[in-house]
Amino acid sequence: MNYKIVRLNTVAKSEITSSVLIIYTGGTLGMSYDASGALVPFNFGQILDKIPTLTHMNIAITVISFPEPIDSSNVNMQHWVDMAYIIYENYDSYDGFVILHGTDTMAYSASMLSYMLSGLTKPVVFTGAQLPISAMRSDARENLMTALEIATAKANGRPIVPEVCIFFNHMLLRGNRCKKVQSVHFDAFESENYPALAEAGIIIDYNFAAIQPFDEGKKLSYSNKMDNNVMIVKLFPGITEKVLDACFDMDGLKGVVLETYGSGNSPSDAWFTGAIKRAIAKGLIILNVSQCNGGRVIQGRYQTSKDLLDMGVLSGGDITTEAAITKMMFLLGNETNKQLIKQKLITPLAGEMSLMGLN
Amino acid sequence: MNYKIVRLNTVAKSEITSSVLIIYTGGTLGMSYDASGALVPFNFGQILDKIPTLTHMNIAITVISFPEPIDSSNVNMQHWVDMAYIIYENYDSYDGFVILHGTDTMAYSASMLSYMLSGLTKPVVFTGAQLPISAMRSDARENLMTALEIATAKANGRPIVPEVCIFFNHMLLRGNRCKKVQSVHFDAFESENYPALAEAGIIIDYNFAAIQPFDEGKKLSYSNKMDNNVMIVKLFPGITEKVLDACFDMDGLKGVVLETYGSGNSPSDAWFTGAIKRAIAKGLIILNVSQCNGGRVIQGRYQTSKDLLDMGVLSGGDITTEAAITKMMFLLGNETNKQLIKQKLITPLAGEMSLMGLN
Amino acid sequence: MNYKIVRLNTVAKSEITSSVLIIYTGGTLGMSYDASGALVPFNFGQILDKIPTLTHMNIAITVISFPEPIDSSNVNMQHWVDMAYIIYENYDSYDGFVILHGTDTMAYSASMLSYMLSGLTKPVVFTGAQLPISAMRSDARENLMTALEIATAKANGRPIVPEVCIFFNHMLLRGNRCKKVQSVHFDAFESENYPALAEAGIIIDYNFAAIQPFDEGKKLSYSNKMDNNVMIVKLFPGITEKVLDACFDMDGLKGVVLETYGSGNSPSDAWFTGAIKRAIAKGLIILNVSQCNGGRVIQGRYQTSKDLLDMGVLSGGDITTEAAITKMMFLLGNETNKQLIKQKLITPLAGEMSLMGLN
Amino acid sequence: MNYKIVRLNTVAKSEITSSVLIIYTGGTLGMSYDASGALVPFNFGQILDKIPTLTHMNIAITVISFPEPIDSSNVNMQHWVDMAYIIYENYDSYDGFVILHGTDTMAYSASMLSYMLSGLTKPVVFTGAQLPISAMRSDARENLMTALEIATAKANGRPIVPEVCIFFNHMLLRGNRCKKVQSVHFDAFESENYPALAEAGIIIDYNFAAIQPFDEGKKLSYSNKMDNNVMIVKLFPGITEKVLDACFDMDGLKGVVLETYGSGNSPSDAWFTGAIKRAIAKGLIILNVSQCNGGRVIQGRYQTSKDLLDMGVLSGGDITTEAAITKMMFLLGNETNKQLIKQKLITPLAGEMSLMGLN
Repeated sequence: MNYKIVRLNTVAKSEITSSVLIIYTGGTLGMSYDASGALVPFNFGQILDKIPTLTHMNIAITVISFPEPIDSSNVNMQHWVDMAYIIYENYDSYDGFVILHGTDTMAYSASMLSYMLSGLTKPVVFTGAQLPISAMRSDARENLMTALEIATAKANGRPIVPEVCIFFNHMLLRGNRCKKVQSVHFDAFESENYPALAEAGIIIDYNFAAIQPFDEGKKLSYSNKMDNNVMIVKLFPGITEKVLDACFDMDGLKGVVLETYGSGNSPSDAWFTGAIKRAIAKGLIILNVSQCNGGRVIQGRYQTSKDLLDMGVLSGGDITTEAAITKMMFLLGNETNKQLIKQKLITPLAGEMSLMGLN
Repeated sequence: MNYKIVRLNTVAKSEITSSVLIIYTGGTLGMSYDASGALVPFNFGQILDKIPTLTHMNIAITVISFPEPIDSSNVNMQHWVDMAYIIYENYDSYDGFVILHGTDTMAYSASMLSYMLSGLTKPVVFTGAQLPISAMRSDARENLMTALEIATAKANGRPIVPEVCIFFNHMLLRGNRCKKVQSVHFDAFESENYPALAEAGIIIDYNFAAIQPFDEGKKLSYSNKMDNNVMIVKLFPGITEKVLDACFDMDGLKGVVLETYGSGNSPSDAWFTGAIKRAIAKGLIILNVSQCNGGRVIQGRYQTSKDLLDMGVLSGGDITTEAAITKMMFLLGNETNKQLIKQKLITPLAGEMSLMGLN
Repeated sequence: MNYKIVRLNTVAKSEITSSVLIIYTGGTLGMSYDASGALVPFNFGQILDKIPTLTHMNIAITVISFPEPIDSSNVNMQHWVDMAYIIYENYDSYDGFVILHGTDTMAYSASMLSYMLSGLTKPVVFTGAQLPISAMRSDARENLMTALEIATAKANGRPIVPEVCIFFNHMLLRGNRCKKVQSVHFDAFESENYPALAEAGIIIDYNFAAIQPFDEGKKLSYSNKMDNNVMIVKLFPGITEKVLDACFDMDGLKGVVLETYGSGNSPSDAWFTGAIKRAIAKGLIILNVSQCNGGRVIQGRYQTSKDLLDMGVLSGGDITTEAAITKMMFLLGNETNKQLIKQKLITPLAGEMSLMGLN
Repeated sequence: MNYKIVRLNTVAKSEITSSVLIIYTGGTLGMSYDASGALVPFNFGQILDKIPTLTHMNIAITVISFPEPIDSSNVNMQHWVDMAYIIYENYDSYDGFVILHGTDTMAYSASMLSYMLSGLTKPVVFTGAQLPISAMRSDARENLMTALEIATAKANGRPIVPEVCIFFNHMLLRGNRCKKVQSVHFDAFESENYPALAEAGIIIDYNFAAIQPFDEGKKLSYSNKMDNNVMIVKLFPGITEKVLDACFDMDGLKGVVLETYGSGNSPSDAWFTGAIKRAIAKGLIILNVSQCNGGRVIQGRYQTSKDLLDMGVLSGGDITTEAAITKMMFLLGNETNKQLIKQKLITPLAGEMSLMGLN
């Protein structure tokens, strides 16, 4: 990939107290309106003009821009590899990392990076905006400035937030616990099953009990393997055996995130359980995740979920669909032993699910 | 269907001021634990023992129970026909209707009934519970008592809420605007894009501006036709042409709810637009609905959604997936002219979408 | 008062589409840290350097600054006269008005101005910030930019928000319905008993049903009279007759806002009712306002509030303490007939209380 | 006091697993409407008829009723002594304690009891209701049933919540952190500056990190001394020296809770600081508490609060007014050394303020 690298002379060398690498992937934050009225990405150099106060921070900022900034709806596996690789390659040179990313798929990307970058001891903060930084009104400026502060925040000489997270609209959330829930207002993200890591106000109020503890002994490793022979199947009343079969019979399919009802329930009709059994019999891995944003799958609470448990469907506990489908892609790419994959799917890998949600 | 009908002698005839028909379909509200520890439905007669105060309301209550109360994960099209038919047949005999229903698919059922029962001038209130009425702690009692009060509430001699709605955890919400968003706490339902119709506290505080106005001239009609040759396709970064094709090529498929990102965005890669174009070319109706609970599809805001608009994908505006997939089934069952179906999909039928969300 | 007036050459004359008068009174928005670490106000000229994008709006901006910008804890009656007079004198020359004001007493000032400026047909938008505009992170820039947009917003050629309001942290609230409820986070204001007038996100979403309707026939009048022979007496269990007497016997006292419990309740002990009766007998006007932010005084619901009603204590309904104490000062200054004052205290003057809250 | 004691034969002795003492003080929960339409307290015997399921809990319940159940607006110091004494006298005989109390002053009473009962190792759960248990709709039943469950909840044989708390509308909050903020809806209480101790849903979800840890070594002590020579003085713009003097000159006054603006700010005019200085010079203890529900007093952030600090006004940090005025009464009654009182006022006594809020 032919990245564009910009080093910003923000402050005199003697005043620099910390350093951040910004990875600019695209997204609304850096967009502008074209002649037809649609929003298109523009060059990151122009973004910096918009925030003169950047030069007042005692932070040395380097920007690596994707050669073609992308709308996050176009994010694919290669982009994840690029983001993780840039961090891995530059890990020792910076105190923290900020990834500018469109909001649409930010929760998916943050989840995947939390798996790809294991042993993290420095902050990786995703942020973006609902309105372009070039707009009169915009959440872009505050989101970026605060993300930079969090990416360099230390206590007792150690990074406060050594994990992949999303900062948006005053809230710092764990990356693999988020969903985008709002496309119009500024409060775009929600982490229904895990507390916020911090709230930015007059001060940045960190919730130390919720943040992954810093562990000096950890060493960053990086995996760029993943396998997208997966799909999401979402239940609805009226769904038929034909629908299930059309999905499960897809050529090459290895794993399915099954979006069920409530605490992990599905129809108990014979045609339904039959289709599930056939899928599992031919080797498909099926992970049960709820359509509800909050709460968790408790297979066995109702007859309708007990059936799934008995058939070998795995319980996703309180994981989000975003964290589940990326975890499945990651594990399928990195493990060959199917039993191990199954075991890891129901075990927290990077804080993406609670232990209590399992069964 | 062989319904069980129970007439409750709650009060002396002279004290009766209004009448409600309760339709008991099943759900947690009426469940108890069996020997194995799983929750199973039990007989409605036992439910009434649990609420002695029912006999103090000046309401004549009739209960029609499904012969086999069902877990709502098992709700299918026939059950919707049954619910709507019972209301239609008994419409003139009661002031209002309460449907006891499991929470898991309540938003789907309430949406479908809002389409099936057009010209409604009386309240149809869905309710249920997160905990069985037989449990020590339970939200069942308050949900039922308040639903009964709302089902009979009048102002100036006219029903206050002449529409299909859901009452749960103090809030009255429009049925086809709801999602189940919580499977553990009591605040199970959310109506992110439309205000609450009422909040129950010391008084029941109706939001008159948000409720469908009573229209004396309306006459109830009832349709029991629907067509479930539909499916939900949910996008995720990493999704492949193979996944789209496996779905779109399903035998007999007529319509797809496409769960896109943010304000209705999708990949703009050629393989993606190619798959969409082929699907539309062979006659599939595709409705663009956002994965975000709040906000709305605005096709054309970004290049990635403008493409969808240009290809003939319909914009679901601020409709929920629950209201969208049921609307599609309803329209496919009731209309043969495909242009008319498309037109109706982007037009509010029963308050399920906002006019401003269209384009 | 010796105001400083600045006319900003923001845009070429031909591009100007509307005009705003900013009244800079002081407050955190325009503060900076002094040598001792305390925040002190600084000159408004410096503020404009911080927001280069101001020059991109098609708005002609004039700034009138208080000669000595004040911390809003120091706001007094003369400052209210100044603010209202500046608007009154310049009313015809601008499309709208923005008052930059500290958050601490903003709800009091907005309430008072809503009474002083009757017949308003143009927006008067208070705003400020939790962090100075010169800070790295700050809510100042977004609050000001959006306030300017709202102050000039028109629909069908008419101002959308022709009333005194507060814009803060994405929300536009009616000024005399607000309370400052947060001193650390950015969501400083709340309007518990009246809906928001707008929420700013990707668009500014106006709640037209809640906004005072524009009335072409209205003509602005202005009163600068008020009388601060008033006080707030807040009940607590353990309060004694001595406390009440010390307050009520204050020399010259004319009116009291009595902060009671819940829906307007107070002790029913003889020593308490005795003290109230004596106060009323000697001519004090007592207005019953709840310590609860939400809900309303319903005198007569409980015996403990029925007593107050019987003794001649007036019910504040759902008014805030901030709107109540300023209304009392305003009425005492403008009316001499005590019966009329009492009547007006229990009647909405500028949307500060709901009709339903009265009894 | 001539208490009425009722022992409920809820279950056969062999099935009893735990025991609770209910102290019935009065309040809406146990009220009914009298002929004139006002709510008046009624006998607790009638309350039990309303909850037949009580007999299904494996809990031995004893009820001690105040001889004359009171509206909580009438709660005074003697009632606090009674509540605390009943618990102290019966401490060894029960697993937990439930106090039925009106909502209006519940936060004051819970705060005071948290100081009076030091060394607590068992739950003391206040609860009540917005609607009487005899009403058709009511929050009384669920509040009581859940309070009983929490009062007997154990983990590893130890009480889960060994502190004074309030359970209301699904939420368990620390008693001395609460405010009543709603008088109409069911969500009456808020604990803005401290997380909830538990949320009741399908399960009761305890927030173990927030609950006072159980300490076997603690021994309950009880103090019945307090001194109510105190008052609350609430600032407002327009307040005069006369108002301050009328308050501060009250005969016998020892302490004042000064309700200031924002993060603890007050006017810096000479007349104001003069009045404060005179009050302190003559020995008054003044505690600075914010009018804002959320956030905290940070004396010294602004000039307007730095003055207070310099004059000897104490910072209440993030304490509520309810917890502050009761703490002042408690300390004035139990300590004679004024320096010690001042020191304790700015130090957490029973979890009522955060360490970080001090300066």
